[in-house]
Amino acid sequence: MLKGIDPLLSGELLRILDEMGHGDELLLVDRNFPAAATGRPVVRLGEVGVVRAASAILGVFPLDEFIERPLARMEVHEDPTLTTSEQDEILDIARREHPRALEWEIVPRLDFYERSRRAYAVVHTLEPRPWGCFILSKGVVFPPAEA
Amino acid sequence: MLKGIDPLLSGELLRILDEMGHGDELLLVDRNFPAAATGRPVVRLGEVGVVRAASAILGVFPLDEFIERPLARMEVHEDPTLTTSEQDEILDIARREHPRALEWEIVPRLDFYERSRRAYAVVHTLEPRPWGCFILSKGVVFPPAEA
Repeated sequence: MLKGIDPLLSGELLRILDEMGHGDELLLVDRNFPAAATGRPVVRLGEVGVVRAASAILGVFPLDEFIERPLARMEVHEDPTLTTSEQDEILDIARREHPRALEWEIVPRLDFYERSRRAYAVVHTLEPRPWGCFILSKGVVFPPAEA
Repeated sequence: MLKGIDPLLSGELLRILDEMGHGDELLLVDRNFPAAATGRPVVRLGEVGVVRAASAILGVFPLDEFIERPLARMEVHEDPTLTTSEQDEILDIARREHPRALEWEIVPRLDFYERSRRAYAVVHTLEPRPWGCFILSKGVVFPPAEA
């Protein structure tokens, strides 16, 4: 436990989030996602949903301002026009934190699996609802003068 | 790098600070302190002094409110009435963060060495001035309603 830091951000997760550099990708996934099979480090948050987890992570994790779409979601039912309520909430949270306009990158399920093998790490939740799978590309913390 | 967290708090140090529990002791030491010989984990902050390091750490690390003197300094020249300017500055910083009255516990040098072997971890700086050695006892983060 630390003052002023969301308690969901455990020491292990803080270390990973901090050690990630510009362009590294973090996966945030629901309980059905094949997290261990990615071969990447997995942090298990226990009985927490993806919206709560995204809110804690995006409080400290800058999304990449150098690319157009630093936030990706898994495509729903092979229809890019569909979203889930969790996806909508996470885009709202990310938009509040991000200094630029933000739209989803949409990644079909099998492509998402493929890309997950190159992630820096995977944050696993017990989100029960499907398609709660996201990719967050890490950005830069600028010095205060340039903020 | 993370948003809103002092960049001196590296991932490794954040993990240690977060994983420490109530009553665990953190050492913050100058460049001459026998840090490695404690046998405890050592985080090396590089060319940083103890005041800067204490300021970053005390921004997230709660001192123990359950004990009278959760902050100790190494005794100067075997005279408990002497302090260094770094010690004075660190007490000022700690007092600003701590919700209760705060006075030094003063630990003679050889007792400090003995006690350091039971520390949770050691934060090593390149502080050039002597007696820049401190023990921080970790406290509790209370839920907001009880704050």
